[in-house]
This record gives sequence, structure tokens and C-alpha cells, in this order.
Amino acid sequence: MNGKHVSLNMNVRGLKPSATLAINERSNALRREGKSIFKLGLGQSPFPVPDCVVNALRHHAQEKDYLPVKGLPELREAVADFHRRKDHINASAEGVLIGPGSKELMFLLQLVYYGEILLPTPCWVSYGPQAKIIGRNVQLIQTTYEERWRISAARLRAYLEHENDTFRPRLLILNYPGNPDGESYTMEELQELAEAAREYEIILLSDEIYGQLKHRGGHFSVGRFYPEGTIISSGLSKWCGAGGWRLGTFTFPKSLSWLLDAMAAVASETFTSVSAPIQYAAVPAFRGGPEIEEYLSHARRILRMIGTRSAAILSEAGVRVHSPDGAFYLFMDLEPFRAPLASRGIRDSREMCDRLLMDTGVAILPGADFERPSSELSARLAYVNFDGAEALAASKEVPLDHDLPESFLEVHCADTLEAMARISAWVKQNASGDS
Amino acid sequence: MNGKHVSLNMNVRGLKPSATLAINERSNALRREGKSIFKLGLGQSPFPVPDCVVNALRHHAQEKDYLPVKGLPELREAVADFHRRKDHINASAEGVLIGPGSKELMFLLQLVYYGEILLPTPCWVSYGPQAKIIGRNVQLIQTTYEERWRISAARLRAYLEHENDTFRPRLLILNYPGNPDGESYTMEELQELAEAAREYEIILLSDEIYGQLKHRGGHFSVGRFYPEGTIISSGLSKWCGAGGWRLGTFTFPKSLSWLLDAMAAVASETFTSVSAPIQYAAVPAFRGGPEIEEYLSHARRILRMIGTRSAAILSEAGVRVHSPDGAFYLFMDLEPFRAPLASRGIRDSREMCDRLLMDTGVAILPGADFERPSSELSARLAYVNFDGAEALAASKEVPLDHDLPESFLEVHCADTLEAMARISAWVKQNASGDS
Repeated sequence: MNGKHVSLNMNVRGLKPSATLAINERSNALRREGKSIFKLGLGQSPFPVPDCVVNALRHHAQEKDYLPVKGLPELREAVADFHRRKDHINASAEGVLIGPGSKELMFLLQLVYYGEILLPTPCWVSYGPQAKIIGRNVQLIQTTYEERWRISAARLRAYLEHENDTFRPRLLILNYPGNPDGESYTMEELQELAEAAREYEIILLSDEIYGQLKHRGGHFSVGRFYPEGTIISSGLSKWCGAGGWRLGTFTFPKSLSWLLDAMAAVASETFTSVSAPIQYAAVPAFRGGPEIEEYLSHARRILRMIGTRSAAILSEAGVRVHSPDGAFYLFMDLEPFRAPLASRGIRDSREMCDRLLMDTGVAILPGADFERPSSELSARLAYVNFDGAEALAASKEVPLDHDLPESFLEVHCADTLEAMARISAWVKQNASGDS
Repeated sequence: MNGKHVSLNMNVRGLKPSATLAINERSNALRREGKSIFKLGLGQSPFPVPDCVVNALRHHAQEKDYLPVKGLPELREAVADFHRRKDHINASAEGVLIGPGSKELMFLLQLVYYGEILLPTPCWVSYGPQAKIIGRNVQLIQTTYEERWRISAARLRAYLEHENDTFRPRLLILNYPGNPDGESYTMEELQELAEAAREYEIILLSDEIYGQLKHRGGHFSVGRFYPEGTIISSGLSKWCGAGGWRLGTFTFPKSLSWLLDAMAAVASETFTSVSAPIQYAAVPAFRGGPEIEEYLSHARRILRMIGTRSAAILSEAGVRVHSPDGAFYLFMDLEPFRAPLASRGIRDSREMCDRLLMDTGVAILPGADFERPSSELSARLAYVNFDGAEALAASKEVPLDHDLPESFLEVHCADTLEAMARISAWVKQNASGDS
């Protein structure tokens, strides 16, 4: 920016690139300088796109026509079927909207919806900046380590009862298994949240993009309990390993078709429709079948093993961290080390992550990027810096009803374990009072 | 929309899907009902994507990583090279931004820029609705048939001198060859516009997505004369036949990097980056070479022939229409027939196009969709309803230094000629006073 003499929307001035993308680009730049970097910043699936999906893209490479704004009809049907099959939701193709990533769809939702956005934190990095760009306020509801970083119905009710305007239009964003924490909700927790949402006429945006990466399977959607008020978000980026392909999905109940239609109208004036070859390729991914299910089973088994081990290594060093339910993240709380860290000049999450990167080469993201108080010593790591293709191939050698051998991680996820060891050593060193 | 009880942003309430996409979906629906429809509504290239580009997509189908927000470095370099080679602009890769369609990039530009948007009309359908969504005003400058629907430097100066705030931040959108009119600017016209823009410190968004489809070649960019203030817009959708792929490009001079950076920051919170396989596939398209140049030469020759003939048929019926310079559009002015059309209840462009569709099966778009006064009897047609793959193959049988045989259109673009004949007959019938 060349100083003051630019004509920029004040909602955008000073806006930095998305934290997760920025850490990725910064990590790559440090690598190009020859530094040894452990990329635990960007939350990208380590696994390749399943072969049948890649082959579908090759097969449909010549598709050149603009597709309907809401999406390719076969894909909308496949997505609805996916949610019927996986989530036992009465979804229909008419309720499905395809976008170039669920991030873009969330932006459009915030743009077209007029009401208050409720955001339990820690939460995904982009919800807040999106609201700022549009000029909206979001209401943060801070959860705690003890609450497993989950919002309870009681907390939600307490917030709502404290407000004067009980039936203000509101949209609550839930994300489970969660980014940045890897935690999910129990069926009972979701049932209680659904009851509170129904009582206060709150719309739920249920971001379930990690649903198929719940480590022990059995993902459960809040849409089961509150179908008329729940929008389910999904996409290819996480469970299908295709983050770079950019395809996300929203599935609406009939009662919220006014939101779907408004989003589609804006879509027609912005991204138009999602890339045609990509939409055709996504059809077999959502239709599923034995190849996709086998892929998911192996991915989950590997993520469960590395996630559990990573959490254990960090816990052993005194970090407050939960063993994850799903996805590929851990949210670390280093508040127990506030005093020794402060004596080394580390007083907030950004300083903590900067120092960790300088000292150890491990790139992670500060809690502040996830709408936590900036002074809180929290951070997210993504345990994805291993060769997913190789790990998947090795896992396929071991029947799915067996556990992977103990040495699996040492062989196939050595850099991830090394990163955990470095964080652990760094914590111990900085907590000990040694310098 | 279920009535009043929805919580929608007032800028979005009542917004309809983009006119061009809506006419496409409506035409397809009429066809499914068994009606014979001539689809001259949506402005989609009739030609297939060149083989080398489709093959590149197949080759890169497994690319799954998130790419940098601004775009794949090789693609940014290829786009800069394209503009250096084709437009003799001193473009650099650092100045290039890749988006999921240039429409999305224009939306982001309007969102981040804070200033007045000047829009000569008739203009592309989405500039105005984008401003409305964001809550901005645009200033329309209506041009006339006699001016070939082009804005002159004199008209621009007259507008600016009439304003009290001479140096208000302003962005002028130029589009040439133009949608909806197929007209371009002469080098002298661009030079004069550039001088006026420099004098008043106006930023130019030069939408040159049809540049390579100037029928006789020789497209010339205003960026030659005003490099420091011109953003050039291009993409794969028109000259490369890949509208459904969704890839657009903006190329900025160094002096406007503050706009590029602000757009990239918003991009990182919305679409993230363009689909990776699509970006890899776009590299050979922008790099060009003999196969691409041959494809373009044939496409231009076919479009020149059908465009010229179409304009002649309509002119002969008394329609005011210019023989086109490029692209695949004609903008028809039926004002000479106001009285007889009014006697049949046709008083504005929407009624005119609705009646034409009902009476003849020819789908075109009303001038009102291009920001013309709604009462004006104008409309756009896209002469693209022929089999582009077949026409291209037939053209390749005829050396490029020859003209195509006179019968070429009757053989390969029969439906387009039929549509022109139907419009022509409809005009004559409605102008004659017969019923």
C-alpha cells in the first residue's frame, strides 16, 4: 500500500491475507531460504484425492459450458444423497447449493443474511474477517479448555437470556469435528443445542466439513434434531483431500429456501457457478461407494493414531490439550506457563508462535487467529506434515479390523513426531526457567 | 421467498439471478417442454476448449494443494507474458491476480475500491447489480447508436466538468470489443480517453476479455497509453471457449498494487484461490503458440462471417445495428418501430423480448439488462447458437488466407441464420401494421 493516498473501503483497509494461507505462504518462503520448516500451519489434508475422483476429472476435462448457478443437477442430487445416507437428513437436491469452497458460501451467507452472527470460539479463522469485510458485527461466545472448547446449550441460553432482544434474527455457527480443536459434540449435546435453537428461532450453520474425518466414525449431525433450521456445510476440501480444487456445498431445508435463493442470486453476479469439470468430478466423491469408504477408513485410522499420539506427547510436556475426536488439529493451551514465558518476553499468542517458529522451525497459528483473546497463550497445530499418499498405501497393507503397528508413525509420520518433540522440548525448556 | 418474514440484507432483497444466466436457464426449461428455442441469450463461446488446454487439465487432474491466493506463479507469469506479447504492455507476474472468473474479480474490485464507478452504457449485465449488492452507486453515462455505443473522451470530459468534485476517486469501466454491442475503439479514441483519464486521475478497468476475438485481429489496449492507471481484465471464458471453467485475470500496474493487495486479502477470505487443476491447465492457454493462434484465427474468421451476415440481415429489416468489430454480440435498436410496436402493446425492451420469444422462439436479452432506459426498444443477441466444434473443423479445411465459401453459414450456422430470419420477419410483420 502506498500510504494514505489510496481509495479503499474502510472495512478492507488493513485487512491481511487469511491467517492460514499466510502461514502457508510464509512457511514456503522460509523453506526457499533453506530453513528446515515443519508446516503445521495450513490445515490441508495430507491425503491425495481418491483415484476414482481424479479419473472423473480427467474424463470430464472437456466440459466447458457454464453450469447452473446452484450447481450441476447430478451433483446436487449426489450431495443430497450423501447427507441422507451419512447423516440421515431428509435432504433434497433442490436444497443444495454448490460453491467454489464452503468459505465462499459462508461469505455469501453472511452477506445476504441480516441478523446477528453468534460465534463460539475458538473458531475457524475466516468467520470474523468475513463479517468485518461486510461490515457486520459478530458476537463471540468464548468457551474454555474445561468445556472442551464446545458451546453448551446452557451457555447459549445464558447468552440469549442476557440480551434484551430475545427474538433478534440470529445465526449460530457450529463446527464439529472442530477447527481448530478437533473436538466434536455428543448426540445429547447436539440435541440440547437444537432445542435451544428452536426455542429462540436461531438458524444453525452446521459446518460439518470434517464430519467424515471423525476418527472413530459415527459423525452425527445436529440437523437430525432441528432439520427446519439447520444449514449443513460440507465440501471436497477435507475428507476428499481436494482443498485446492475449491468445491463446497451448503444443504438447506425447504424452510430456508429464501436464504438459498438469495445466495444463488448473489452467486450469479459473482462466481457464476463452480468450475464445470470439477463439479462433474465431485459426483462420484459424494455418491461414495467401496473405494471412497475404504479411503476414508484408512485416512481416519491414520489421523486417529497420529492425533492421539501428538496430543499425548504434548500433554506429557504439560500442554493443556484434548485428545482429538476428529479432523487434524490440536488446540494447545499454554496458560500454565504464562509466568516463565513472560519472563522470556512472550506475552501473547502471536509472540509465542513467532518465537516457536524461530526457535524450532515449527509453524503453527496463534489462538488470536481463532478469535481468542490476543493475550491468551493458545495456538492451533495441524498434524498434516507427512506424506499422505505413502501413509495411505502403507495402511492399506494392514487389514482395517487390525490396529496399525506401533512403529507406523515413526516410519510414516516421522516429521510430525519430530515437530511434536520440538514443541515439547521448547515448552519444557521455556517452562523450566533455563535459558 | 416466503413473504416478509425473512431476514435479508436490503441490498439483496428482490435481487434476481443474473440476466444472462437466467435467460439460459429459462431457454433450457422451454426446450425441455418441447419448444423449439434459438438460444441467443447467454453469451457463451460456441467453440470447444483447444485440445492442448484440455489435455493440460487431464495431465494436472491430481493437483490438490491450495495454490497461492494471487495465483499459480507460472500462470501469473504466463498471463503477464500474454499481455506483453499481445498488448505490448509492460506487465509483470507480480501484477497479476487470478480469480474464479473475471466477474468475481470485478465484484471484489467494487467491494474494495472506495470511489465512484463510471459506467458507459449499454454495458455488461453484472456491473450494476454488483454495485447494488455492495451498496454503491454507479454513474451511468448513456451513449447512443450514432456514437456506436462508445464513450468518447469529449463525453467523459463533459460529464466530469459538470460535476463539482473534479478529483473525486473514480473508476471508469471500458469494455472492448464490447458486450453487448460488439464494438471496439480506434487507437485514437483510446488515446484520447487515456489522456482524459490521466488528467482527472481516473482509474480505468479495461475489460478486454474479447480482445482476442476482434474479428480482424489487431486488438489494441488502452493500457498502452495510460499504463499507470489501467487494470486489464481478461480470462479463459471467451477467447478460449472455457466459460464453464471459471478463470479470470486482472493485470495491475505497480502503481495500483494497493488495489491488487486489498483484493487478494478479500480473496483469501472468500474464494481462497482458483481451482488448482484449472490454473495449471490455463498456463498453455496464456502461453499461446501455433495451436492456440490457429484456433483463434479460425474462431475469428467464423465469427466475422456470421456477425457481419447477421447484422446485414437485421439492417435490411430496418433494425438499427452496427456491423460488429469483435466478440459475438449485436445490440439492436428498434426505436424506429416504436409506434407500430406500441400499437401491439410492446412499450419497453422486456415486453419486446418476451413477445419475440413467444412468437418466434428466439431468446435474446432486453436492453434494460444492459443498463439502458427500460422504455428503450433495444436488445442484445449473441450469435452463438451453432456447433462451434463442427464449424471449427470445417474452417480448418480452408486455408486461413482464403475467405470461407459463401455457403459456409448455410451449412454450419443454419440455426443462427434461421434465428436472424425469424427476428427479421417478426420486425417486418410488426412494423408493417399487419397483425
